[in-house]
Amino acid sequence: MHILITGASGMIGRKLTAALVAKGSLQDQPITGLTLVDITAPVLPDGVPGAALAADLSDAAAAPALIDARPDVIFHLAAIVSGEAEADLHKGYAVNLHGTLALCDAITRQEDYRPRFVFASSIAVFGAPLPDVIPDDQPTLPLTSYGTQKAMGEMLISDLSRRGALDGIALRLPTICIRPGKPNAAASGFYSSILREPLVGDPAVLPVPDTTRHWFASPRAAVGFLIHAAEMDLTPLGQNRALSLPGVDATVGDEIAALERIAGPKAVALIRREPDATIAKIVAGWPQAFDPARARALGFEAEPDMDAIIRAHIEDELDGRIPVAD
Amino acid sequence: MHILITGASGMIGRKLTAALVAKGSLQDQPITGLTLVDITAPVLPDGVPGAALAADLSDAAAAPALIDARPDVIFHLAAIVSGEAEADLHKGYAVNLHGTLALCDAITRQEDYRPRFVFASSIAVFGAPLPDVIPDDQPTLPLTSYGTQKAMGEMLISDLSRRGALDGIALRLPTICIRPGKPNAAASGFYSSILREPLVGDPAVLPVPDTTRHWFASPRAAVGFLIHAAEMDLTPLGQNRALSLPGVDATVGDEIAALERIAGPKAVALIRREPDATIAKIVAGWPQAFDPARARALGFEAEPDMDAIIRAHIEDELDGRIPVAD
Ligand SMILES: NC(=O)c1ccc[n+]([C@@H]2O[C@H](COP(=O)([O-])OP(=O)(O)OC[C@H]3O[C@@H](n4cnc5c(N)ncnc54)[C@H](O)[C@@H]3O)[C@@H](O)[C@H]2O)c1
Ligand SMILES: NC(=O)c1ccc[n+]([C@@H]2O[C@H](COP(=O)([O-])OP(=O)(O)OC[C@H]3O[C@@H](n4cnc5c(N)ncnc54)[C@H](O)[C@@H]3O)[C@@H](O)[C@H]2O)c1
Repeated sequence: MHILITGASGMIGRKLTAALVAKGSLQDQPITGLTLVDITAPVLPDGVPGAALAADLSDAAAAPALIDARPDVIFHLAAIVSGEAEADLHKGYAVNLHGTLALCDAITRQEDYRPRFVFASSIAVFGAPLPDVIPDDQPTLPLTSYGTQKAMGEMLISDLSRRGALDGIALRLPTICIRPGKPNAAASGFYSSILREPLVGDPAVLPVPDTTRHWFASPRAAVGFLIHAAEMDLTPLGQNRALSLPGVDATVGDEIAALERIAGPKAVALIRREPDATIAKIVAGWPQAFDPARARALGFEAEPDMDAIIRAHIEDELDGRIPVAD
Repeated sequence: MHILITGASGMIGRKLTAALVAKGSLQDQPITGLTLVDITAPVLPDGVPGAALAADLSDAAAAPALIDARPDVIFHLAAIVSGEAEADLHKGYAVNLHGTLALCDAITRQEDYRPRFVFASSIAVFGAPLPDVIPDDQPTLPLTSYGTQKAMGEMLISDLSRRGALDGIALRLPTICIRPGKPNAAASGFYSSILREPLVGDPAVLPVPDTTRHWFASPRAAVGFLIHAAEMDLTPLGQNRALSLPGVDATVGDEIAALERIAGPKAVALIRREPDATIAKIVAGWPQAFDPARARALGFEAEPDMDAIIRAHIEDELDGRIPVAD
């Protein structure tokens, strides 16, 4: 079992790598090769057979070199995020669309090769006006270039799967929460930071009203989705290989209530409300909740609630401790 | 008013060129330049200022040369048809997707430039399972590579229009009927040939049952759609720049009944029923009828019925004569 992970230096890429190494096998076959690629050189864990490569996937020459090795399973995670794709039109299309096109093109140029292709899509393929709860047959009408690039990738993967050129699936990951690490510039950053910072005793800013509702899954759940997508039989998906995934439907108020239950009022007091009209406007165009019946029937599972999301973070990032409560 | 037409040697391209030359103006401005481009060199009508160029739009070098002249209105019609895109995976993506991407990319690299961009999409962006009458918010789930490439182009145009890089619209043309000229290999060819051939006294083969239902517009209506799309205010379209168009909802039986009303039983007797399971299966996945409320509200109009479609053909292609009835 030879696995290729693009975007392997990223947040999800690193966690997926660790999970695969811990598992040791995929589709019941021992992992004999792990190729990690990212624009910033990934780190291949000690003792794991494989390679860590620095490559820019927006350069059309990069893909054939990776695909010539004919990996059995490809996790395509490399992307620039929503804010950057909006700020830099050409870079967004180069990485998020042409990167995916080049990878798929290289696959279709191999003979007798049909790898499992797991593509990290996003709920950003949907944009307002949207129903409160988004059904599986909701049309994809993105409001951002990032969402457009992901939606185009989804269509490509459905078409190439139908043609038998690859066996693909596009997972519309919920917003990952709690995203570990430093606060970043993403408009969605506050959803994680109002939990992550207070848990370790640091202040956090909340730019939107407590009633703001959104769709979340933990990094651990995201890795679970990706591995399940790589192992399951994809035939039941039929022609439409894009899937909205289970998640936790929560308001900012729900996040704060869960934080209080788990870490106490001292944590909650670290959240400062500083309304930001720009962020509130961006967020208002985003999906709120889903009814991901197809994905659930196919065995995809997320956390049951925000408490479980916070507990997963405490276990995976804080060694089971809650610094603010110490 | 400088106009660029890609695919100008094609069936619709030639008719659009003629209509624009006859009209002399677009958006109430005199046409001062007409650039025609196709892989097979187009013919620029006598006395018209402009250029006729042979270029392959799947070659990324072609687009910048065309866009450097900063045409005010671009009709992007160049494409290979469904059957060819299915038979040749790489050519389909090269022409129908990368050709569109390259043209749009060249546009976004100009400063202070926002041309009207009219893209010929297709009802092939929809595939079974479909409701009998397709509403405007039907998700695009193509069953062919051609439909996939058109749907990806639609998304690109919506995104670039939202960003102000161009002022675009994607028209999902109904199946054009009666397509003039020789019978071709397209799976949809019989919809035209069962009318076109008998009208001139030639035999035609019908490979599907009389109950087969589909969505049609004449070449004349298609040209009308394109010109309307180039002249109207696109603001009311909002974020979603793709539009399903009005057409005639007719069964094969309706086509034959209209032929009989207009050209008599002698014409109808020239149709030979020769069921073809392969064609019947392809056709079964296609849209049957639409409720194109958005397009109608925006002033798009097709023929009222199959009789009008046949009469348009007799006027435009047969000098008003019906040879089989002579
Ligand atoms: N984190 C989320 O909330 C979320 C939600 C939905 C979808 N996703 C998607 O999941 C995937 C992984 O997300 P993440 O949170 O780990 O993001 P991340 O930004 O942490 O990781 C993405 C990685 O892609 C790499 N990359 C960017 N451009 C590249 C290029 N030209 N060539 C090679 N590598 C390049 C980056 O260096 C980075 O390491 C992305 O495709 C993202 O769009 C994430
Ligand atoms: N005719 C229909 O029923 C119908 C229905 C829906 C949509 N459309 C779309 O309308 C447009 C025009 O249709 P048509 O019926 O005139 O088709 P057509 O095949 O007659 O014309 C298409 C033209 O594009 C040109 N072309 C192909 N590859 C090219 C390349 N690489 N570079 C430059 N030019 C290239 C061809 O030479 C041809 O002249 C197409 O985009 C088609 O997909 C047509």
